Amino acid sequence: MSSSDIFIGETIGTAILILLGGGVCAAVTLKASKARNAGWLAITFGWGFAVLTAVYTSAPLSGAHLNPAVTLAIAIKDGDWKNVPVYFAGQVLGAMIGAALVWVAYYGQFHAHLTDREIVGGPGAQDTAVKAVEAQEKGAGPVLGVFSTGPEVRVAWQNVATEIIGTVVLVLAVLTQGLNDKGNGLGTLGALVTALVVVSIGLSLGGPTGYAINPARDLGPRIVHALLPLPNKGGSDWGYAWVPVVGPLIGGAIAAGIYNVAFA
Amino acid sequence: MSSSDIFIGETIGTAILILLGGGVCAAVTLKASKARNAGWLAITFGWGFAVLTAVYTSAPLSGAHLNPAVTLAIAIKDGDWKNVPVYFAGQVLGAMIGAALVWVAYYGQFHAHLTDREIVGGPGAQDTAVKAVEAQEKGAGPVLGVFSTGPEVRVAWQNVATEIIGTVVLVLAVLTQGLNDKGNGLGTLGALVTALVVVSIGLSLGGPTGYAINPARDLGPRIVHALLPLPNKGGSDWGYAWVPVVGPLIGGAIAAGIYNVAFA
Amino acid sequence: MSSSDIFIGETIGTAILILLGGGVCAAVTLKASKARNAGWLAITFGWGFAVLTAVYTSAPLSGAHLNPAVTLAIAIKDGDWKNVPVYFAGQVLGAMIGAALVWVAYYGQFHAHLTDREIVGGPGAQDTAVKAVEAQEKGAGPVLGVFSTGPEVRVAWQNVATEIIGTVVLVLAVLTQGLNDKGNGLGTLGALVTALVVVSIGLSLGGPTGYAINPARDLGPRIVHALLPLPNKGGSDWGYAWVPVVGPLIGGAIAAGIYNVAFA
Amino acid sequence: MSSSDIFIGETIGTAILILLGGGVCAAVTLKASKARNAGWLAITFGWGFAVLTAVYTSAPLSGAHLNPAVTLAIAIKDGDWKNVPVYFAGQVLGAMIGAALVWVAYYGQFHAHLTDREIVGGPGAQDTAVKAVEAQEKGAGPVLGVFSTGPEVRVAWQNVATEIIGTVVLVLAVLTQGLNDKGNGLGTLGALVTALVVVSIGLSLGGPTGYAINPARDLGPRIVHALLPLPNKGGSDWGYAWVPVVGPLIGGAIAAGIYNVAFA
Repeated sequence: MSSSDIFIGETIGTAILILLGGGVCAAVTLKASKARNAGWLAITFGWGFAVLTAVYTSAPLSGAHLNPAVTLAIAIKDGDWKNVPVYFAGQVLGAMIGAALVWVAYYGQFHAHLTDREIVGGPGAQDTAVKAVEAQEKGAGPVLGVFSTGPEVRVAWQNVATEIIGTVVLVLAVLTQGLNDKGNGLGTLGALVTALVVVSIGLSLGGPTGYAINPARDLGPRIVHALLPLPNKGGSDWGYAWVPVVGPLIGGAIAAGIYNVAFA
Repeated sequence: MSSSDIFIGETIGTAILILLGGGVCAAVTLKASKARNAGWLAITFGWGFAVLTAVYTSAPLSGAHLNPAVTLAIAIKDGDWKNVPVYFAGQVLGAMIGAALVWVAYYGQFHAHLTDREIVGGPGAQDTAVKAVEAQEKGAGPVLGVFSTGPEVRVAWQNVATEIIGTVVLVLAVLTQGLNDKGNGLGTLGALVTALVVVSIGLSLGGPTGYAINPARDLGPRIVHALLPLPNKGGSDWGYAWVPVVGPLIGGAIAAGIYNVAFA
Repeated sequence: MSSSDIFIGETIGTAILILLGGGVCAAVTLKASKARNAGWLAITFGWGFAVLTAVYTSAPLSGAHLNPAVTLAIAIKDGDWKNVPVYFAGQVLGAMIGAALVWVAYYGQFHAHLTDREIVGGPGAQDTAVKAVEAQEKGAGPVLGVFSTGPEVRVAWQNVATEIIGTVVLVLAVLTQGLNDKGNGLGTLGALVTALVVVSIGLSLGGPTGYAINPARDLGPRIVHALLPLPNKGGSDWGYAWVPVVGPLIGGAIAAGIYNVAFA
Repeated sequence: MSSSDIFIGETIGTAILILLGGGVCAAVTLKASKARNAGWLAITFGWGFAVLTAVYTSAPLSGAHLNPAVTLAIAIKDGDWKNVPVYFAGQVLGAMIGAALVWVAYYGQFHAHLTDREIVGGPGAQDTAVKAVEAQEKGAGPVLGVFSTGPEVRVAWQNVATEIIGTVVLVLAVLTQGLNDKGNGLGTLGALVTALVVVSIGLSLGGPTGYAINPARDLGPRIVHALLPLPNKGGSDWGYAWVPVVGPLIGGAIAAGIYNVAFA
């Protein structure tokens, strides 16, 4: 694979991943969406099939890492760091493009949601501070959730641990794919299994932090959230931004270590 | 593939697609259905597995395009326009047959739904204009939704953009299937992936417009809706009919362009 | 395949099919079940994966018809009627065994459901006729629904038509499996597709009649319902019993005809 | 496969199985989880995809039994008992590790749930005995349910029978995998089918007892529940602990017998 194929593949693939992954959050969360309140199962299958679509589409170009934690783990496993920066660059750029496309596809829904007086505080909310807090909770919080993850219980060690554990599971499944496929061209089946593993992680380990398990998935859209001209959007919660970057990278490294010790 | 195989395959396949796709909308929407209020997840899995069933059944005859946007993209990719009119004709005819079969299978449900006084306006609705609007919202709107798509926020540029984005994702996945399969006869697996990609698009990009992503899927059933002798059925919303035709065709062309530049 | 392998395979396979298919109806319907009110999506995935489990397990012995409509269609397609009675006998026997196993697995739930005074009429229900009707609606109706199908709108021509349409879709997908597999040993994938086709038919065409699409699936358990010593169980609705037998058989024959004309 | 590969594979695989399986119970049950009240479908798909992830990851090392009932059945089928103790040891150890990891990943959720005064009895609950019973029902019962199974109707013969029936279905599907795969390297597809069979058993036979169908899955986490320093956690229901051990072992033996008589 050439560097340009890797960069283009990772950019297209991660853009599709975040378009569909952020899209399902918008679909289930925002006002004036047919999928509103479709529930956690819709979120988790939506993200899983986003992985399937993204991996399937970009695999012929770049091998479909789409996740710096996967790229890191494969570099550790193979001892080959040459293309790592190209992968990272495509992943972050793609994630930003995907987040911007969610904004286009749900343009009217974002504006209906954020400008709804009932959501942002209501006519009776005289006090500005209270109004701001209510807006965060009712309108802006869900909108940030379309872009980036956040914890239910904000305790740094647990949030990092949960992201580490989820990423170890994901990356172990990705690394063992080579052992299961035995070179008989079943890459498509591998993409399907990876997608269902992501559904599994979402259902089983997504409750506490919303399962970023991918630094690019969280950081790229958070940057876009900070840049977009959305009314009443509130802050981008930069204080939490390091957790879904550091946790998954540690998880990827641990998974590579387990692989090298137990499976290689 | 002979022209007659293509025509028969596309007619059968698109008929099954719309029978099952329109069917799940009827099942979830109409009164006196066991599946009533089964939710958005049922709608999206229903349409996805409709694609699976339709593709699997018609692929041996016509290759299972079942969508003018797919036919257009493959023609652009291959530079071969010979059978395009045959594909289009089978797709629109099949979509009309499928919509008519939904009417047969849910005959009692359509009539129970549209003649229910509680739905069409109620005994207290004296004023004809108000009654008509309420009927549209309560009874006729959902019935049209069994046949064709409509937007939650009616803004033409966004509606077209959302349909374009969804169709680009669909068609890119269809076009890269050839790169993933590597000629080892895994067409069945390709059909399954395509089906799950459609579930993904439904979950993630269906919120604003109901994801037509297929001109025949929307236009054929809309014609049937206009022709069927349903009581209180209301209008067929022809003012919107161009969006789910033009948007997907543009999306198919863009996807073919991306494919030719990045993947070919 | 020997006659005894066919008989044993169809008996085991159809027993598993009805154990799991009837089981999900019991799980979602009866009191004192953890899955109570899990909804239509649970029912349809439950029946679909019941087909997967049953087909996968019995295919090595009998080819896994598990459905007289499938056996009829294959006999018409191949012009070979030799083993048809063996298939039919195994299917009906297996369906009866499966229904009895549901009764064992949910023994406490059936009794909790049928003897709950709140369900069967309540302490205030003095009038016996009213009490009987209420029992049918509240307690006995759902219990019969664990065994056999029944229509939401009881109009014979529509009920038969809906069962025909659903069975045509099912059997066409089964018959085209041979064209899709191309002899490369992907029977497992065919079983998976068939299972998801059944989910599709359930989601899309199950609303009016509960999608028997299989004479043995409906008749065998109805006989068991009539025989079992369940308190307050009400009648077995024999007046409807011909519909889910005749409709699917007609549907199987039509699908075989379509196959022979268009695909052979 | 060497003994150490078997032990490591079963430990890793069963740890992933229980991490994800217990995880989905925590996600759906506990306070301060994004997945709270996601429902029975989430539970059953969560456990099924937990099986997929665990089997896929551990199969290259140990063949991925992950269940003493499967190990027992394969030993009976093959007449080879050499590695049975190694399998059992890895399975129980892995299950305990997995349960401990659920505790880490959901640490804040466990504590939020068990120390919530509204859940454990409320400020008005003066009487200690009443308070203890309410705590069991509202707070401690669901927490034990994250670790181990329990029946809805506590009747030993039915609970054992339900576990036997479910395990027979599971193990028959596992044993026939060899007949379906025909040595063409489709182990990945076998893992997927096994996962969906587990979803099926959950949907269809999980209502009465919560479908342990695996002695290690129930016993290992129950030991961890007894050891963990959780506040207000209540008892570990040791009186029921024999049922999900004995039932599945009997079921595995019966399935092996059916296989040897009908399929071998």
